[in-house]
Amino acid sequence: MDEDTLIQRYFSFDADSPGLIQGPGDDAALLKLPPETCAISTDLFLQGAHFDPGDDPADLGHKALAVNLSDLAAMGATPVCFTLGLAMPRIDESWIAGFSEGVKGLAREYGVALAGGDLSRGELGVCITVIGTLEGDTPALRRDAAMVGDRIGVTGTVGDAALARLYPDRAGLESCRERLYRPRPRVEFGCNIRGHAHAAMDISDGVLKDLGRLLKASGKGALVELMEIPLSKPVADERTKSGDWFSILGGGEDYELVFTAPESEWEDIQRIGHQLGVPISSIGIVDGDDGLRLTEKGESVPLPSQLGYDHFGGA
Amino acid sequence: MDEDTLIQRYFSFDADSPGLIQGPGDDAALLKLPPETCAISTDLFLQGAHFDPGDDPADLGHKALAVNLSDLAAMGATPVCFTLGLAMPRIDESWIAGFSEGVKGLAREYGVALAGGDLSRGELGVCITVIGTLEGDTPALRRDAAMVGDRIGVTGTVGDAALARLYPDRAGLESCRERLYRPRPRVEFGCNIRGHAHAAMDISDGVLKDLGRLLKASGKGALVELMEIPLSKPVADERTKSGDWFSILGGGEDYELVFTAPESEWEDIQRIGHQLGVPISSIGIVDGDDGLRLTEKGESVPLPSQLGYDHFGGA
Repeated sequence: MDEDTLIQRYFSFDADSPGLIQGPGDDAALLKLPPETCAISTDLFLQGAHFDPGDDPADLGHKALAVNLSDLAAMGATPVCFTLGLAMPRIDESWIAGFSEGVKGLAREYGVALAGGDLSRGELGVCITVIGTLEGDTPALRRDAAMVGDRIGVTGTVGDAALARLYPDRAGLESCRERLYRPRPRVEFGCNIRGHAHAAMDISDGVLKDLGRLLKASGKGALVELMEIPLSKPVADERTKSGDWFSILGGGEDYELVFTAPESEWEDIQRIGHQLGVPISSIGIVDGDDGLRLTEKGESVPLPSQLGYDHFGGA
Repeated sequence: MDEDTLIQRYFSFDADSPGLIQGPGDDAALLKLPPETCAISTDLFLQGAHFDPGDDPADLGHKALAVNLSDLAAMGATPVCFTLGLAMPRIDESWIAGFSEGVKGLAREYGVALAGGDLSRGELGVCITVIGTLEGDTPALRRDAAMVGDRIGVTGTVGDAALARLYPDRAGLESCRERLYRPRPRVEFGCNIRGHAHAAMDISDGVLKDLGRLLKASGKGALVELMEIPLSKPVADERTKSGDWFSILGGGEDYELVFTAPESEWEDIQRIGHQLGVPISSIGIVDGDDGLRLTEKGESVPLPSQLGYDHFGGA
């Protein structure tokens, strides 16, 4: 099967996106975006760094798009469309079919259209670029907008994906594996807290590392209580057993949001979380300008040297 | 040097792009695009498939962006910004510095801003996504809009890059090597012939293969005279010597445009080409619906089985 036919068969799906005038098949796709601010983000998703050779292609398709949608969620932007670059060593139609199914499923669910792509020979890997819009004049959830006095919130639970990656064969980690392979980006929550929260990020490299980045970008500091960090039962059990907070919190791949919001908005944010079924935990307070500091049950805990996932770890 | 510092040092450059509100550094970049149609395109640029291990990183930076700008040129869109995904096996700061310089140079020249990116461990490769705008209501230069009676035009000369790739050490091919490593996308010409030409494509996979795609998308056929295909002196000499049209015409990497336009617009298009210093050749006529047919000095020539570059050739 030639390249053009493959693209036609597996990558010519449009979600119901009124913004897309012309999808894949020409030199470029054509969009008519509303006259609003757009957000654009790109992520590589590569074998070796982000997934393993034996991983299910449908899971990979889901996740490659999910990690990008999570970036839009972290800005409070509504996804509109995406482009997809796919490199593979040779044409493997059954792999492509599975991958395409995974991408398509999530794209339909989140109402985001495939605008275009490229297919080439290379090591297995994906590069997705997403575009979203920010309705109205409410500012985006930037990472440099935290204010002293803000409460720090985290959605869902963290460490689940890292635990599933650490123990691929352990029983009882089904929910963690779901988090690792089929993350659910917090798009609706992100869009809804825009105007309530000051700053936000997704915590793909681990909650502490990414919160550290947010504080640095904002020129602020914060005190975080480790006991308030939301853990699922399997992760809490592992933490108790190992006595170590950081191996799991630093594993990354939590496609949750960390955000900061003034006390006065906290009740509204809780209500939004409740309506959308998104649990929210308050883990600390932005309190000055001297970086991230941790406590455990009120006692000071030194910061580990490696707070989260490093994309060139060991290199 | 950590990833965040590297990105700050080498990938935080903005061209003068009024559309970019916030560039790299957050989960997503923020744009304020004019209320016009946008064009978006993505291309992979990978070691092995698109470049060789020893290639100059500054050339690679230039070319990775150039091939994307060429896609916008082929739609008649004005480039606004781009995202850049870069995979490399380990952090090599001098390579990154060279690559960044090559990208930056072309970005400044074409007035296109870096909106964001991603850096990851993997086989050396680049994925760039570009966004452009199409002012006013004049339709884009789609590939499916050729009409019977249209004249077929090609910019510049073709085959130069293929010749340089075939004979890396041959003397006298400096101009061909310039075309291979530092292609100049025909952005201004593409934007200016929108409204005059019906259809256009860039001919990255070779003039005959890409013209074949344009005709197929348009449901049309055409008669092309090989002797009218514009060749530089080195390519014409090689053609005469080898007696073979197709090895060089099928080599691809010609970042020129092929377009079709009604006879009544031809004079205006010639004038635009003249003003911009872009040579234009008329190579044939869209004449019905039975695909691409070739003549040499008026005598029919059979189509070769392989018309141009195949991204999975031999796989």
